[in-house]
Amino acid sequence: MEFLDALSQQLGPGAVIHPGEGMASYLTERRGLFADRPVRAVLRPADSAGVAATVRMCAQQGVAIVPQGGNTGLCGGAAATDGGEAIILSLERLNRIRAVDADNFSLTAEAGCRLSAVQAAAAAVDRLFPLSYAAEGDCQIGGNLATNAGGMNVLRYGNARDLTLGLEVVLADGRIWNGLRALRKDNSGYDLKDLFIGAEGTLGIITAATLKLFPAIRERATAIVGLESAESAVALFGILRAESGDTVTSCELMGRQPLAFAIDYAEGCVEPLPAAYPWYLLIELTSSGHEVQLGRRLERALSAAPAGIGDYRIADNADEAAAFWRLRNGIPGAQKGAGASVKNDISVPVADMPGFIDAAGAVVRDACPGVRVCAFGHIGDGNIHFNLTRPETMDDADFLAEWDELTQQVHDVVMTYNGSFAAEHGVGQLKPGEVSRLKDPVEQDLMRRLKSALDPAGRLNPGKVVPPAED
Amino acid sequence: MEFLDALSQQLGPGAVIHPGEGMASYLTERRGLFADRPVRAVLRPADSAGVAATVRMCAQQGVAIVPQGGNTGLCGGAAATDGGEAIILSLERLNRIRAVDADNFSLTAEAGCRLSAVQAAAAAVDRLFPLSYAAEGDCQIGGNLATNAGGMNVLRYGNARDLTLGLEVVLADGRIWNGLRALRKDNSGYDLKDLFIGAEGTLGIITAATLKLFPAIRERATAIVGLESAESAVALFGILRAESGDTVTSCELMGRQPLAFAIDYAEGCVEPLPAAYPWYLLIELTSSGHEVQLGRRLERALSAAPAGIGDYRIADNADEAAAFWRLRNGIPGAQKGAGASVKNDISVPVADMPGFIDAAGAVVRDACPGVRVCAFGHIGDGNIHFNLTRPETMDDADFLAEWDELTQQVHDVVMTYNGSFAAEHGVGQLKPGEVSRLKDPVEQDLMRRLKSALDPAGRLNPGKVVPPAED
Repeated sequence: MEFLDALSQQLGPGAVIHPGEGMASYLTERRGLFADRPVRAVLRPADSAGVAATVRMCAQQGVAIVPQGGNTGLCGGAAATDGGEAIILSLERLNRIRAVDADNFSLTAEAGCRLSAVQAAAAAVDRLFPLSYAAEGDCQIGGNLATNAGGMNVLRYGNARDLTLGLEVVLADGRIWNGLRALRKDNSGYDLKDLFIGAEGTLGIITAATLKLFPAIRERATAIVGLESAESAVALFGILRAESGDTVTSCELMGRQPLAFAIDYAEGCVEPLPAAYPWYLLIELTSSGHEVQLGRRLERALSAAPAGIGDYRIADNADEAAAFWRLRNGIPGAQKGAGASVKNDISVPVADMPGFIDAAGAVVRDACPGVRVCAFGHIGDGNIHFNLTRPETMDDADFLAEWDELTQQVHDVVMTYNGSFAAEHGVGQLKPGEVSRLKDPVEQDLMRRLKSALDPAGRLNPGKVVPPAED
Repeated sequence: MEFLDALSQQLGPGAVIHPGEGMASYLTERRGLFADRPVRAVLRPADSAGVAATVRMCAQQGVAIVPQGGNTGLCGGAAATDGGEAIILSLERLNRIRAVDADNFSLTAEAGCRLSAVQAAAAAVDRLFPLSYAAEGDCQIGGNLATNAGGMNVLRYGNARDLTLGLEVVLADGRIWNGLRALRKDNSGYDLKDLFIGAEGTLGIITAATLKLFPAIRERATAIVGLESAESAVALFGILRAESGDTVTSCELMGRQPLAFAIDYAEGCVEPLPAAYPWYLLIELTSSGHEVQLGRRLERALSAAPAGIGDYRIADNADEAAAFWRLRNGIPGAQKGAGASVKNDISVPVADMPGFIDAAGAVVRDACPGVRVCAFGHIGDGNIHFNLTRPETMDDADFLAEWDELTQQVHDVVMTYNGSFAAEHGVGQLKPGEVSRLKDPVEQDLMRRLKSALDPAGRLNPGKVVPPAED
């Protein structure tokens, strides 16, 4: 295979992995939906010039490229489609922090830096890089940007997109666009960076990014609140944002069902309040200031809070706060203990969350009597993981056979609220069908025009995000 | 003129203004650089469907369109280029607030709503729409988005782009893209909205937007600080962000020269501190909380502050705070009293601000001995208005004849800091030459590809933002 030999020579030792040479970890895929798809090779250039050379040579040869970061995505964006003719381009060796500028509240990291390494580089200069979620020790910043990752702190700090000042991108023809500007205001041309963020490698390959930093957190207050209804959660969220001086960093809604799963199946999870409630809110306020007395402010807001608020408990110390977070973080694993589940990653406007939960719940219970709705997520972002666990008496396989139907029914309800059927995990190769089914044809046409403008030959991550045109 | 008659019939009475029928206000232009350019007509549709019909008919007839909001821009983006063959499409009649959702911290406004009307609609439900600058009573939200407006509160809340959740846009062929989603997380496709924001109407015409709101401000603390150097301003900014719990909303740097101009020429401006300093910082902290004691926190941060901080004064009351702000807001007008000036709207990384001021100052003093550097602006954004007032002994006209040369020399220094030559006022028809001269050819090529993909016939605001291709 001449072309791979030429690339191997250009990129140096260890840069080309052929089939049978230990590429298994690049072909795994967390949900197992797109695992072990064969590819011609895995290419591991060491720098942006190497990425550019790889893309240029693939363009000349007509070879499709699947860019890959930490390979922790859930929608198959970093896995090949069927066919075996593509190569995987791993960014993992581009793992340098190029610059940290505490005065400018910014740093520049290469795409293959782990999220946890970016967080650590910020912390070393008493700054915070706020993007945070469960996979942070494995996922890479390039993948975070390619999927516009969300996570726990979006409410306060925004998605990955909002945290980005500039990008370096290798284009479909192998040219490098150097847009690594560290500026807060720049209106000297079109906003190119936001085109590549969230495009899952279909418009260009992000090789480095200049990111926003914030003052490091010095104080924190954490509470768990029992609620009579999801409506009270929406009301409480608004009050807390205002009363706390907009210091709410996390506001996680949990139904009784997922909380009960966590208590039953997850390590170290116990009933958090004397009584059980239909809904719970896990609230965290943070501040970079000294003696801000967040706990006292949280207490005052909760004690004066509106109807529908039941018991609450403000953590006395870090251990107790960790116990509250264990409940929230234990849910995804605990769900497995209760049987197979169908996941939905959706968002609606915050105020429509209660209505959506009721309407979608009715639809799925009708379609699958006995299904256990396991709703939890980021209420401040209107982003709920509306997961469905199989009825107690149903077979896992029988239930999973209904995945597409149940998911489509949930998405149909989402669309009546002008919501999103792909809130924080992206489209990948899991949901282009839903893009085609649910998105306005005008919007699909715009997406195709952009794809044609930036990747006319369609070699960058084909089969992802953009559905094929109907003719 | 058949086509205008047909449009007049379709759009209803008062929608078409012909030359000689009172179109002067649409042809004014604040700086007088692009004023009174003739056009075939001014069209004033009343709703999005009317905008779409206008664009469709112009597309059929091959007529160029100049979209116009409040017509307050400084770079000629809303003025026609030479030729007289274009029409102006005013969005002023699209002035409805379509929805306000306090629980979702969002509202939806049509493009022709004045910025002050959007602010008022938010305030009516105890929320804040933070975009704010001098023209807020005249400018329109559609223009704010088309130019990605900045202003006084960017440091805390971001530019217009950061405040936008969704858009409705009329495309070059007259189709309407309805992207008015009120979601905090949506990764269901490419990020289309950010393509139109800041594109100055060259890729599509924004007809409505869903905007982010924040809790209303309840407490405020304002101070003015004398400083020995611009370096101390950078250091103080970092300390204040951290110590104040990131509640710094404004952080305005002023050189002694512009402050002296304000004291000499602007109404009600007096020396703010007992001694004079080379630099001043106007600081404002705000919070939506009760009893946050921002003044006490500001006092503590300033009294413990680093080297180079001189006298400071924290406003005792709203009147005193207003007096500090009068100094800052008086500068642009006061400059006129001191003679002609050349304006530069540039940005660099915050930490490079002092170096830039020194380097650019040396360059312009060398090019024009006796020139008075009048540097002031938003240090937290790295955005400084590096304005140059003529030497005391020079003629206004002689000085203005040097505009292009001085500006280019300043921009050359900006580029050595990887900065922007168009920070918050956009490119319009004033700076496409600088785009061509200073931007990476790869970036220019990307801009042209996007323009071709979305406006292949080049009828949307031609001659703005994108420089013609070199052949």
